[in-house]
Amino acid sequence: MVEVKQAQAHEPEAATTTLLPPAAHPGDACSLVDTPALLLDLDAFEDNLRTMQVLAERHGVALRPHAKAHRCPEVALRQVALGAVGICCQKVSEALPFVAAGLRDIHISNEVVGAAKLRLLAELARRARLTVCVDDAQAAQALSEAMLEHKASIGVLIEIDVGQKRCGVQTPEATVELASMLQSLPGLSFLGVQAYHGGLQHKRSLDQRQKACDKAARLVRRHLDALKLAGIPCSIVTGGGTGTAVFDVASGVYTEIQAGSYAFMDTDYGSIDWGEALAFRHSLFLLGTVMSTPTADRAVLDFGLKSTSTESGAPELLGHDGLRCVAVHDEHCILHAASPSDRPALGQKLRLVPSHCDPTFNLHDSLVAIRGDKVEGVWPISARGLSR
Amino acid sequence: MVEVKQAQAHEPEAATTTLLPPAAHPGDACSLVDTPALLLDLDAFEDNLRTMQVLAERHGVALRPHAKAHRCPEVALRQVALGAVGICCQKVSEALPFVAAGLRDIHISNEVVGAAKLRLLAELARRARLTVCVDDAQAAQALSEAMLEHKASIGVLIEIDVGQKRCGVQTPEATVELASMLQSLPGLSFLGVQAYHGGLQHKRSLDQRQKACDKAARLVRRHLDALKLAGIPCSIVTGGGTGTAVFDVASGVYTEIQAGSYAFMDTDYGSIDWGEALAFRHSLFLLGTVMSTPTADRAVLDFGLKSTSTESGAPELLGHDGLRCVAVHDEHCILHAASPSDRPALGQKLRLVPSHCDPTFNLHDSLVAIRGDKVEGVWPISARGLSR
Repeated sequence: MVEVKQAQAHEPEAATTTLLPPAAHPGDACSLVDTPALLLDLDAFEDNLRTMQVLAERHGVALRPHAKAHRCPEVALRQVALGAVGICCQKVSEALPFVAAGLRDIHISNEVVGAAKLRLLAELARRARLTVCVDDAQAAQALSEAMLEHKASIGVLIEIDVGQKRCGVQTPEATVELASMLQSLPGLSFLGVQAYHGGLQHKRSLDQRQKACDKAARLVRRHLDALKLAGIPCSIVTGGGTGTAVFDVASGVYTEIQAGSYAFMDTDYGSIDWGEALAFRHSLFLLGTVMSTPTADRAVLDFGLKSTSTESGAPELLGHDGLRCVAVHDEHCILHAASPSDRPALGQKLRLVPSHCDPTFNLHDSLVAIRGDKVEGVWPISARGLSR
Repeated sequence: MVEVKQAQAHEPEAATTTLLPPAAHPGDACSLVDTPALLLDLDAFEDNLRTMQVLAERHGVALRPHAKAHRCPEVALRQVALGAVGICCQKVSEALPFVAAGLRDIHISNEVVGAAKLRLLAELARRARLTVCVDDAQAAQALSEAMLEHKASIGVLIEIDVGQKRCGVQTPEATVELASMLQSLPGLSFLGVQAYHGGLQHKRSLDQRQKACDKAARLVRRHLDALKLAGIPCSIVTGGGTGTAVFDVASGVYTEIQAGSYAFMDTDYGSIDWGEALAFRHSLFLLGTVMSTPTADRAVLDFGLKSTSTESGAPELLGHDGLRCVAVHDEHCILHAASPSDRPALGQKLRLVPSHCDPTFNLHDSLVAIRGDKVEGVWPISARGLSR
């Protein structure tokens, strides 16, 4: 029996859960946004979208931005409006709000295993043009059976392991064998291959990235040559990302690139060498309030690990030379001020650039879209938490 | 104008967002739980609750478990049912679902700064017995004004920095000065102090923790002595945590302890030396499915950083000697098998122990409560994402 102390003279609990207002309203000054909040600077964001779209179009390569980066349909709609052919999702359930928002061309850039997920995938395939990755004969068989059972059909790409050491077939021979099987399985259309190497994206020097990309492209070409020799048509070669996009589009191998972070530019991507190649701007910010100034050299912000991911480092303050984030606790960021005059005041709001956008988006339910000093919209991050 | 390719012959999108079933249903066998999922082993969980409750009661110290660890009202109701005096929340908005669930004695173990949050705090203070921390005169003034404006009253504790170097007043003199001010501010009742030191909780050896606790307790006593000398009554001394609980309850300083992780026992707490003092069991598990077995020594699970936090390390497989998690990507865990026979099969489900429970809970919308091999309930993690 649950015994809960009932304090006297308190109001009834009705509507307790509706007490929380939105973090911001369109038209608000940015200074009114409640914290912690995730801000999107629309001017920088739109510049980034155009920069990548122009790069892809110049090389005749399709841009299929990765929605795993943001999980936000309003972002995807703007990417498609500018010319993206569709989007990628990494998980089946993640695709749901994008289909609901009207996106109709989605590549699930991942293997899907398990009866519940295959059922959901088939349901989605009846509602949108869907493609999915496979790297295993048994999984391909299960995928085909699910499509048959639910009267759906789906495009299939074979994932090739080009050095990431994650999923994917290992040899051109295995690719040909699996492609032959896929051609014969009902409910499936073999369309091409996926070759993605996340590790390459973050190599610091442009030269290192170029060399690593060339190596991956040579590997992809061996698989493509083997398919050609076997007489198996392959119309899609999808892969690539923000850090390697400039090489991927010029490689002659990829028909589409899957970049995601380019729209936001976290500190991790911000710290790699971009040369003259591309110029992306930071568009994504964490907004925090100084909630304590206990010493002359310390200020504490009101967000932590539950609002920002840290596996690529602490979020960074830009334009505050004497102030830096020295620790991130569950609900606090600890800032160190080089001198007392660098310490922000109690109640002051500060913007920080997250170190890794994908898992940071996944911690927030909404994205506060701002232009200049005004809130333009509050966009639901509808696929937040949809990881099945 | 957003242009979205409309594929032909697709079903209308109605109900797309309702396609996703719950990850599990009460009565299901555990093998049917869809992944990724967060599992709570109720037998181990209930043992842990009893162990800590017994420890606290044996020393006449109140147990006020920290709800920031789990953000799940069903967990808090069970803690209170066993004798906890109430709960702690770290954020104002986090407290909302707990008040809605019937919890009526909540300590906000943190400073609250900003008009929107103070308004919410006052609204909650009209519905439950609330206490909150302050460490600043200006913040105390704003808190009092908010209580007056919204016709509410609240208990106030001064947070003391006992070495964590986060928030909190720095000297006994500052504590006395602030307490005197709090006594005179309308809408506020000065009730005591909070002294929490997160860093101590995780020191590996029992002896190190004992010494660090003693040092913190001596510091607290200096503040308490100064208050006594000034004739200011102090009825609550709250603090302590899972790692130091055994010393905190015996210190003679604390009137209540704020432990949270004891209920779940992540790998970080699991790896510290517990001596003969207390025995907690792992009750919290991440359930993943093997979605790819690309090589003889590699298997890939279908969850990553979006389902488990890693700032305290990768999640761990217990009871699988030849298999370990070697990398955590955004949506994948990479497992390395010592020999081919150690590699799990495609589709197999595996349980891993998370390294840090608090931010891991915050990545999930529900907690699948299991007993033995059956699902007993699916509990909403209602305060997930409520970080304002």
